[in-house]
Amino acid sequence: MVEKQLNNHEQITTIKTLLDAQKARKFRETYLAYHVYEQAQVFIELDRDERTRLYRYLTPEEVGDMFNAIEEEPEKVVAFFDEMTPTYAAGVINEMYSDNVVDILAYANKEHLNNYLRLLPAKTAAEIRKLLHYEDKTAGSIMSTEFVAISQELNVEQAMQEIKVAAKDAETIYYVYVINDEQRLVGILTLRDMLRNENHIMVKDIMNRQVMSVKVEDDQEDVARTIRDYNFLAIPVTDFANHMIGIINVDDIIDVIDEESAEDYSGLAAVDVEQPDESPWRAAFKRMPWLITLLLLGMSTTSLISHYESLVSQASILAVFMSSITGTAGNAGTQSLATAVRRLAFDDDEKSLLRQLFGELITGVILGLVTGTVIMIIVGIWKHNFVLGFVIGFAMMCAIIVANLAGSFIPMFMDKIGVDPAVASGPFISTLSDLTSVLIYFNIARLFLNFFVGQ
Amino acid sequence: MVEKQLNNHEQITTIKTLLDAQKARKFRETYLAYHVYEQAQVFIELDRDERTRLYRYLTPEEVGDMFNAIEEEPEKVVAFFDEMTPTYAAGVINEMYSDNVVDILAYANKEHLNNYLRLLPAKTAAEIRKLLHYEDKTAGSIMSTEFVAISQELNVEQAMQEIKVAAKDAETIYYVYVINDEQRLVGILTLRDMLRNENHIMVKDIMNRQVMSVKVEDDQEDVARTIRDYNFLAIPVTDFANHMIGIINVDDIIDVIDEESAEDYSGLAAVDVEQPDESPWRAAFKRMPWLITLLLLGMSTTSLISHYESLVSQASILAVFMSSITGTAGNAGTQSLATAVRRLAFDDDEKSLLRQLFGELITGVILGLVTGTVIMIIVGIWKHNFVLGFVIGFAMMCAIIVANLAGSFIPMFMDKIGVDPAVASGPFISTLSDLTSVLIYFNIARLFLNFFVGQ
Repeated sequence: MVEKQLNNHEQITTIKTLLDAQKARKFRETYLAYHVYEQAQVFIELDRDERTRLYRYLTPEEVGDMFNAIEEEPEKVVAFFDEMTPTYAAGVINEMYSDNVVDILAYANKEHLNNYLRLLPAKTAAEIRKLLHYEDKTAGSIMSTEFVAISQELNVEQAMQEIKVAAKDAETIYYVYVINDEQRLVGILTLRDMLRNENHIMVKDIMNRQVMSVKVEDDQEDVARTIRDYNFLAIPVTDFANHMIGIINVDDIIDVIDEESAEDYSGLAAVDVEQPDESPWRAAFKRMPWLITLLLLGMSTTSLISHYESLVSQASILAVFMSSITGTAGNAGTQSLATAVRRLAFDDDEKSLLRQLFGELITGVILGLVTGTVIMIIVGIWKHNFVLGFVIGFAMMCAIIVANLAGSFIPMFMDKIGVDPAVASGPFISTLSDLTSVLIYFNIARLFLNFFVGQ
Repeated sequence: MVEKQLNNHEQITTIKTLLDAQKARKFRETYLAYHVYEQAQVFIELDRDERTRLYRYLTPEEVGDMFNAIEEEPEKVVAFFDEMTPTYAAGVINEMYSDNVVDILAYANKEHLNNYLRLLPAKTAAEIRKLLHYEDKTAGSIMSTEFVAISQELNVEQAMQEIKVAAKDAETIYYVYVINDEQRLVGILTLRDMLRNENHIMVKDIMNRQVMSVKVEDDQEDVARTIRDYNFLAIPVTDFANHMIGIINVDDIIDVIDEESAEDYSGLAAVDVEQPDESPWRAAFKRMPWLITLLLLGMSTTSLISHYESLVSQASILAVFMSSITGTAGNAGTQSLATAVRRLAFDDDEKSLLRQLFGELITGVILGLVTGTVIMIIVGIWKHNFVLGFVIGFAMMCAIIVANLAGSFIPMFMDKIGVDPAVASGPFISTLSDLTSVLIYFNIARLFLNFFVGQ
């Protein structure tokens, strides 16, 4: 019985010591007793010499199983292949699930890739070549080709035999897909269905013919949504003619969900949070471009304010409330942006663009009216000047309405033209809304200048 | 063969028509042919009369299967139970998986709850009562009790027999847990392992003794992380004495990941995005409290600026660059906050608080130095005034460093005192950073006032 958190550091130290002391047998015994995920966690901490020994002590199949569980960036993993002899690397590749292999080999240089593929069984090599061509973030790019497909002319006993044979290599054996003579997907059976039926029953009589599938070019987010909603463990992938060509498993979908939510989050914060655990230098390096870009965009606001400097010198009170207006409008814009991004990511049947914008307009008007009234009263009482209060309140209301509309329009527009709306970052919207808020504020203020300064 | 998106609206219309026309047989045929997820999607669109008919036409078991797939708020689902006769409701409850039932019954009023439980088999009622007591967001609150546990003294053939019996009720039969005479968890077998071994082999000889489990009081986020990292389909839940008491499936974990990422995202945007598809009025109502709270918090910044109004009237140029400084510091603070929140959510072995803060300090200094230099040069050239440029650049650098530290310290501090750091919203950090930025800015400006105004 092991506790959930086996001490990772301890495992690393143990394995390093065994490799350094060249204790092959003891190393195999200890290392192979770990879960493949832990093996992979230890592996990425080894130095080059230790890795070389590990390749010597383990079979390509054992390394392949472990590589299936590796979470390192593919650019780094592909370099490990180059440390092995081509034959050994081909053995590792042959053992891995095709979706994992392809993620990594996408980063191999052409010459090395060809070397590996030449050493693989022709069928596997052809499959990998094919998978390498699917566009990133489509069903094709995350599917694997290790699935169980059987003929509908079998009975349960015969089907169970096929499953037992497939149990060694398939990524899942719990869903069994039924295909006809032309390789077209015609049904699905779960292993559970199979166990609940007698041996002599025909597959075609018990299979579910309403099999849900995704197309190879479908977006991975749509695939994730289907698997999540229907609580599937896997979903088959078909080509245009409904030939079954792959399978996507629930664990790959979890990675997609993680990746997509990290992207949404990163967009909102203008920082890539997918690899949070880095050196301060790298962190600064990654955040800098965003910060500088936003600063430069913000200079447009600054130069706009500069344009109104004489107005401010006539009524320095205007400077006092500027940040309150830009800040509140920015917050409203971010709320509207976040809602729109999530709606675009998760809703199936979208309302029309215009209806959504109209909805945000109503929301903006309500928010603007209430917030504007609140600030009007505060300013009026605080500064004993209700004309000033009205100017601030009215400007804030207008700024909120505009920010709200921009916050929902921009991601919707990006989605329409095929850009991921998540990159419409929160700070970008805030910066844009600063610009419009300042414009609105100073123009309204100028209109009423004589009234509130005169009081 | 059905396409992925069966037309939902069409399904709803068809079913409504059949129910309204009281065509019981045709209704059953059509409705039960849908996937349970689709059945549930249709169900929530029915009106009260239609639902009453549906209860009449379907068995409690059929309704229970469908309720397992329902995604409506539990407050609403519990009201459906009240529409049924208590016996019927108990039948539905009895068919559902315990984790789903408990989510819903948590919202039942005490009297109704007791009515239902009285009509259930004593064992089921006791299990539900127990599950109702686990704290929200722990493993106990999301586990179900429908798992397959067998004795280690069986052979593969006997075990397969038990699995076939369990196949009707268990939530998953693909992982089989092995327990000893004291109900303690001692091993795990996958159905795949079982199929790869001969009938006469003993379970105890092939089971994996290194079974990973979670404790009933563990946080659901930790459970999600383990299942995700190890690519499990399920994980067993044990009590303090290692008795197996439940199981958590991968589909429940997907819901947890979705929920937690929506929470993080909502926090950053100061808006609840979990139910994005609402009327404009409700959207405004939900966003309003945040907007007003942030406005009121922002008033502290406003009153601070007001304090410096005479300074601004001496040098209105200061007003021009204020938004640039508060905006940039706010952006840096949000970046730092987002990174810290994600790190807290996903990292297992945390670095010490002090080390992380020190890291953010370094990052802040680098970001501040570069950004400050950039703005210094811009202002210097634009306004032909390098003293002013220095003041702006220096203030921006200090403001960025402070915002960066606050952005990482606040979520870490919240985490330490047991508050979910995700509620430290981005706008909250921006508002706080506005305050410190203004303080820094005007104090530095005052120091150098004679130099840059004199130029």
